[in-house]
Formats: sequence, structure tokens, C-alpha cells
Amino acid sequence: MHPFATGPRDRVDALGEGGLITAIRRWLGKTCPRAPAGIGDDCAVLPAVRARQLLTVDPVIFGRHFDATVPPAAVGAKLLKRNLSDIAAMGGKPRVAVVSLCLDRATRIRWLQAFHRGLAATARRYGVALVGGDVAEAPGVLIATLTLLGEADGKRVLTRKGARAGDWIVVTGRLGGSLSSGHHHRFTPRLTEGRWLARRSEIRSMMDVSDGLAKDLAALTPSDSRAVLDLGAIPRRRGCTLAAALGDGEDYELLCTVRDGTDLTSLHRAWRRRFPTVPLTVIGRFARKSAAGPAPDHLPATGYEHLRSAP
Amino acid sequence: MHPFATGPRDRVDALGEGGLITAIRRWLGKTCPRAPAGIGDDCAVLPAVRARQLLTVDPVIFGRHFDATVPPAAVGAKLLKRNLSDIAAMGGKPRVAVVSLCLDRATRIRWLQAFHRGLAATARRYGVALVGGDVAEAPGVLIATLTLLGEADGKRVLTRKGARAGDWIVVTGRLGGSLSSGHHHRFTPRLTEGRWLARRSEIRSMMDVSDGLAKDLAALTPSDSRAVLDLGAIPRRRGCTLAAALGDGEDYELLCTVRDGTDLTSLHRAWRRRFPTVPLTVIGRFARKSAAGPAPDHLPATGYEHLRSAP
Repeated sequence: MHPFATGPRDRVDALGEGGLITAIRRWLGKTCPRAPAGIGDDCAVLPAVRARQLLTVDPVIFGRHFDATVPPAAVGAKLLKRNLSDIAAMGGKPRVAVVSLCLDRATRIRWLQAFHRGLAATARRYGVALVGGDVAEAPGVLIATLTLLGEADGKRVLTRKGARAGDWIVVTGRLGGSLSSGHHHRFTPRLTEGRWLARRSEIRSMMDVSDGLAKDLAALTPSDSRAVLDLGAIPRRRGCTLAAALGDGEDYELLCTVRDGTDLTSLHRAWRRRFPTVPLTVIGRFARKSAAGPAPDHLPATGYEHLRSAP
Repeated sequence: MHPFATGPRDRVDALGEGGLITAIRRWLGKTCPRAPAGIGDDCAVLPAVRARQLLTVDPVIFGRHFDATVPPAAVGAKLLKRNLSDIAAMGGKPRVAVVSLCLDRATRIRWLQAFHRGLAATARRYGVALVGGDVAEAPGVLIATLTLLGEADGKRVLTRKGARAGDWIVVTGRLGGSLSSGHHHRFTPRLTEGRWLARRSEIRSMMDVSDGLAKDLAALTPSDSRAVLDLGAIPRRRGCTLAAALGDGEDYELLCTVRDGTDLTSLHRAWRRRFPTVPLTVIGRFARKSAAGPAPDHLPATGYEHLRSAP
């Protein structure tokens, strides 16, 4: 469904701001608590928390993160799941979200309804309350920005820093072809996997793969090291080239580093018992920059870089 | 300064995403803590909090909340202050914010620099840490969405609900003409005033005036009551008509209700001692719907309604 109506019917401006907010509350149903815990006051009021908190924000933009071929319910799901993937990448648990909508006045009400139903279904599935937001008019665009607040699960928050020379590089799932396969909106954020990994002391650092392995890996690489990858080991989605697996992005898989000296067979066995359908693959290792060797010097940075002009 | 470059120079796409994020961290300076407390990891990691938390989100959109005549530093300040006003409206204290930027690749770097410097200066002033965000490309637009997390100050969070028939209606500052006077970006969010009011038990409910008094007042009005206003008492900005004071919006003043039977003179005296330069004005009262009287039946809803088509 195209999000913008071409005729005079089914346009959001027929509702007005007040009518749209009332409709959104109806569409969200029980995932939106009553004010002031949910939509309806100046802020959402949330209970105190004992754990450290995790805060992240990501939008979906029409023409960039979705187009008219993606069902609106899947767009709503993707909006939340993109952010859930960031919480997963630190081993956390999601709690509450707020959504800011910037939309053209010709946006279809039916599109918005399906979008919010998809968002609410995903929120229910992952135990997230949708506690507030904002709607504003912006000609020609449809952008939904979600901010997600979560918390640490247990004592450990796994950051991007912590890997050392000699550590192994490991990735969940398969990479590449996210856009063409529909994975970019059908994926399951690796929340359970992220919490499991964060509880294991041999995992030293973690992130999610969103801009492509080749680009994202730099964030985990210690300054004294280079990433040496076994290119043949990189788990690719069916029909994907190596370049696609390295550079496509929107994989929403977890990339982590494992302490040198870890019994990888035993780690792998424990993983398979817990997550029998999700691959966990050792794809390389950090080598000290000074060390000589037959491995490629470093990985070419072919990941998706936003906003870069063509050379 | 117009935010979009017309020639090939000073365009953000010359930086690329990575370069822009590096520049943003530099522009934000000390208001952006080091990762994982600030920009640079999948989420920002925040300490646990004992108090209840307040969460709100609001954008600024080029062509709607600002235009090329508003200095970019003032746009950055406005973005944060709009959200601070929501925290003020519940008597809270702000803590941390994340910002999502959706921008055309022709956006001027100089504009973005001044915007972030203005945002950072405002954040410093109000003790807010800028802990994360996102940048994404969206053709033809410039939208910054800020999510602000705050906390309750003391035991009380003042919501919009709580007024009863007979209660007085009170407003801070002056209303109307926000756009033409530049108040919409020069205003001072009423944080100190909001906390002061929330600590006084005679104040029963509160909100900020953003869509205009006439529209916003409905949110405070008890279901069994109607708002009866003394139109002559409404404090107007210099040169403003009554209609402007009632309907313009973007006032960012506090509107609150005071328990029937309160000694208004004593309340007013205490206020003046604490806030000698900010007016606090009693503008009306809630009357029971059944009660007869010479007062106007209800207030015409002439506030600014977003997204409504012209009739």
C-alpha cells in the first residue's frame, strides 16, 4: 500500500491531530497504558528502576528504510525491531518506547492503522509499553522515530569496547541480501541471544550488524590490532555474494568477540543446545598490527555509509 | 542562514555519516559524555535512578517549527527547550537526551555546527547530557527529533488530571504572538517555576501551553465542569489581540489549577517573592456544567490544531 492517498478519501487530515491521537491510542490498544503512564499527559511517568538503563533511537523513513512494497504492519514492526536490536547488542531488556511521527497530511489513515497495529503486535511480543509520542505535519515525508528505553539484565552491559589482540570474531545468523530477501523487516531481533552472550565472561564485546560487517567490525577492533577474516567462513544468506554479506547491511545480527584461549567447541555446543536453529560462526580473529602473516592486511571498508556522496 | 547549500560547498555529504558523527561529538563537547555513557555504542548506558522518570519527545521541522530566518543556534536551543517545557509541566528535572536527525544531503555543515552548538549551550544551562542519537538521510527535509528523559523532583509528579469544579485557573507569563515576537525560540522553559508549583499542595494539575490556551485548557477541565474565563485578565504579550493570546500557541507557559478555597493573595505573594519578574495570573475558574450564570458557556476551541484540513 502506498502511504499517501491520491484522492480526497482516507487522508489523515480528515482526522486532525486530536482525532489521530485518539485513533493511535485505539490502534495501540493495551500496549499503551493509561495516562500518565501512557499517552495523554506532557510526559509519560515511568516507575523508578534499580538497574542501569539503556537508551537508543532510530527512525524509519519512507523511501529509505521502507517503500510502498513493504506492508505497513511490517514497517511498524521494523521500527521497533531496529531499536530492539540495539538493546540486544548490549545484552539488555527493552521496557518502554515513544514514537514521533512526521507525516504529510495526505498520509492514508488505513496505512497508519496497519502501521500502528504492526507496531503494537511487536511491542506485545517483546514486552514493550508504548508510552507516548508526538505527531507533526511535514510535507512530502513519512518518518517515524522511535526512542527505546531498556535496562541491563544482570550486572553486565556488553559494550563495543573490550576486545584484545588474539580474540576470536563471532557472528550470529547469516549475512547479506537483507533488502532483496525481506529480512530487513522480517528479522527477529537477537534479544535472548544477546542476554545469553552477555552472561558469558568469555564474550568481551558486542554490537549489532546494521551497516554491514566490513564497516561495523571497525568499531570492535582494538587500536593495536587488525581484523583477519576467514572469508570462506562468513555465513551468507542463500544466493548472496561475499560482497553482499560484507557490505549490504541491515543484517541485525550480533557480532561479538571471544577471549583468546576460550574452548570454542564447548562454547559452540552450549550455544547449539540453547539456540539450535541460529548459527553461531567464528569468522576470524584480531591479529596484532605488528605481526607478520599471510592474512589480508585489513578488511576493505565496503559497508554502507550513509550520506556519503558518490566519488 | 538557509539550512540547504545551493552550491557544491559546505554540504554535509562531503563528511559522510562517520565524519558527521565525529563532528557532532566535537560540536557537543562536554555535554556528550564518553561512550558508553554517551555517543558511540549501540545504546547509551545510564545509571539507575531512584525517582520516577519522565519521558517526552518533540521534533523541530524545517518549514514548520523554524525557517531560514531563525538562527540555527536558536533552532538547537528550541529543540531542547520544547521538551524541557514538557518536563517543567510535571514539576520534573531533566537528565539526558538523544537526538535523531533526518536531513537532506545538501544540508550546510555550518548550519549543523551552529545548531549543535546552540543545542549544547542549552543543554549545559539546564544540566542535560546529550547521550546519543542517529543521523539518516531524507531528501528535501531537515528534522531533528529530541527525546528527553527526566525524573520527578520529590514525591509529586503533577499531571493534567486533578482539577475539580470550583478550582481556579492560573497561568504564568504572557500569551500570544509567539511566532512574530521570536518567543517561540527565545523562551525560557519554566523548569524552576514548575518544580515550585508542584511542591505546593494547592496546585492540583498542570500542563504547558503549546497549542494555545483555548485548545489546551480542555485537557485540564474536569468532565463535570466548564472553564469560565475572565477574558480581560488573560495576560497578553505586547501588541497581541485576545484571539492571538487564546489561539496562537507555542507559548510554553505553565497553565495550572488551584484548589477552591486557596488564599490566592498569599499564593501570589509567595510567587512574587520567588519569581519577581514572571507574572502569575488567575484567569478563570471551573464551574459545574449544571450551574447557571452569566459567564460564557465554554471557551471556543480556536487553538492551533495540527493536520486539520481547512473547512
